[in-house]
Amino acid sequence: MSLSNRQLVLRKRPQAMLAPGDLELTQSAVPELQEGQALAQVKYLSIDPTMRVWMAMDSYLPAVAIGEVMRAFGFAEILESRHPDYKKGDRVTGLTGLQEYALINASAKHTFQKVPKIPFVSDTVFLGVLGINGLTAFFGMEIAQAKKGETLVVSAAAGATGSIAGQIGKIQGCRVVGIAGSDDKCEWITKDLGFDAAINYKHPDWKEKLAAATPNGIDIDFENVGGEIMHAVLDRMNLHGRVVLCGLISGYTKGDPGLASFGMAIVKRLRIQGFIVIDYAARFMEAATQLGQWKMFGKLKDRETIVEGLEKAPEAINMLFTGGNTGKLIVKV
Amino acid sequence: MSLSNRQLVLRKRPQAMLAPGDLELTQSAVPELQEGQALAQVKYLSIDPTMRVWMAMDSYLPAVAIGEVMRAFGFAEILESRHPDYKKGDRVTGLTGLQEYALINASAKHTFQKVPKIPFVSDTVFLGVLGINGLTAFFGMEIAQAKKGETLVVSAAAGATGSIAGQIGKIQGCRVVGIAGSDDKCEWITKDLGFDAAINYKHPDWKEKLAAATPNGIDIDFENVGGEIMHAVLDRMNLHGRVVLCGLISGYTKGDPGLASFGMAIVKRLRIQGFIVIDYAARFMEAATQLGQWKMFGKLKDRETIVEGLEKAPEAINMLFTGGNTGKLIVKV
Repeated sequence: MSLSNRQLVLRKRPQAMLAPGDLELTQSAVPELQEGQALAQVKYLSIDPTMRVWMAMDSYLPAVAIGEVMRAFGFAEILESRHPDYKKGDRVTGLTGLQEYALINASAKHTFQKVPKIPFVSDTVFLGVLGINGLTAFFGMEIAQAKKGETLVVSAAAGATGSIAGQIGKIQGCRVVGIAGSDDKCEWITKDLGFDAAINYKHPDWKEKLAAATPNGIDIDFENVGGEIMHAVLDRMNLHGRVVLCGLISGYTKGDPGLASFGMAIVKRLRIQGFIVIDYAARFMEAATQLGQWKMFGKLKDRETIVEGLEKAPEAINMLFTGGNTGKLIVKV
Repeated sequence: MSLSNRQLVLRKRPQAMLAPGDLELTQSAVPELQEGQALAQVKYLSIDPTMRVWMAMDSYLPAVAIGEVMRAFGFAEILESRHPDYKKGDRVTGLTGLQEYALINASAKHTFQKVPKIPFVSDTVFLGVLGINGLTAFFGMEIAQAKKGETLVVSAAAGATGSIAGQIGKIQGCRVVGIAGSDDKCEWITKDLGFDAAINYKHPDWKEKLAAATPNGIDIDFENVGGEIMHAVLDRMNLHGRVVLCGLISGYTKGDPGLASFGMAIVKRLRIQGFIVIDYAARFMEAATQLGQWKMFGKLKDRETIVEGLEKAPEAINMLFTGGNTGKLIVKV
């Protein structure tokens, strides 16, 4: 079997938004399987803000090297296997990269996770609500230690992680206010997801509306955005509030990821906790089980924005920074 | 008895360093004591970076109003009393303000603390090592939850709070590295106070020296400075490190108190905790007792920079921002 593999290779580190040529679509033959390897066909790719960071600099993972296939989470099926842990037909999630076929090496057994086929549930949930975003929201809200009746504000609230974090806040008895970038998104998170209020930060009076929606101040900030939005939220924090620092997307296409003032952290005696979901890997099954139950009982709803075609992945990455997606953004390969 | 009271009154909010006229020296008669009031003669004034914040903006306390006597901690003796809690000769610390005589009102009983006369111990310790700085260092290091063998970095390490925080770190078994602004200060904190290393950030290669002095990375940042110094420290933090956010003095004379990047907080999974020592008021006696024991047994050493004359207080405040003092900065009235 000689398959051709289309891949998106990193050629240049983007300066702002991704420019044409930063990722180049190339084609290469899939090599013959060696003992200990498995070949997976990539079905869906998860498009996440963190990818923009991986393209630019070393962070919690090393930067993707120039000339390497761009790193990405994906959902794939095992086509052929000489690997002891996988057999043909197994369904896996992991760092497939932006390509049609991923070779799983003998040493890679921990980076690909087998997932079950669940009746009536789309495979893509393993990239979103039961995958990296659901897990991020779950452990982030664990860090938040929300108490019933507290006010939680979530930024990028109509995004894949924010939309789940807010719903977990509702399950935990919080007043939940979301910040998002369009009236449609605001309607979705209030009408469908049950947020108590939503603020469209593109309206000129959004800060007044945020104040009106948080009459008792803010106890928890589930922060995905940074910059001016974070500043406005910190400004309304109550003493001893908690900031769960999940992302700073407003800075990822600018020079500095997350330039903001620490002054408020002293004045308000805030506890700011940065976290990366992969630290919780040992508890992923526990969390996914809980998330799955909530989803089954209708307590967690999700939405997907699906872009068709591997070659559209660079555009899809840019959509994250222009507010083009609602809920989980996925590329169907 | 008709006493004349020299006072420093806030006339203008400073833009950068204090300028002549921001604080005006005025003179007024001490009013006759009413039932419930006490009159205290101010002996020593504590000069602290937070005063610059009080002059500029609302923070954890409201800004000092224009036309009001400038807020300051001080050590005073009761001259005359019709207040049930104080009698002539009592020695107190509290918010005396920058003036020669402070009137204590009936409602003010919690803002002035009686302190004992300790043989062989200067009265000024109640403003420094056994006062607000010692308490700040004590509770800040409690937040840090230092473990034996961890590396602690303290910025403004030759300052009143930093010098004590570092010594508490040594008592707790940490490797302690101080950052300060002169070779003399560095010598003091290593030779006299027992810090393991000191870095003069005015040397061009100070970041390399910081790296060399922290071969195992940094577990705890006791942060007093902010800005570039904080950035360099965060850059060397270990995963899951803790940042005790005590002060951001580098920003106090600039537009923004503490502009810095939150990006590192995510990448390094940091816990950043802002705090204000007055939240711990209920435990001041416990902490002062411990600090006093450490001082008695020679485990805590302190140094004072004393400026003579109330009229010198504005210059003294500026000294904090130019590195003019080592240890506790005090104005002798």
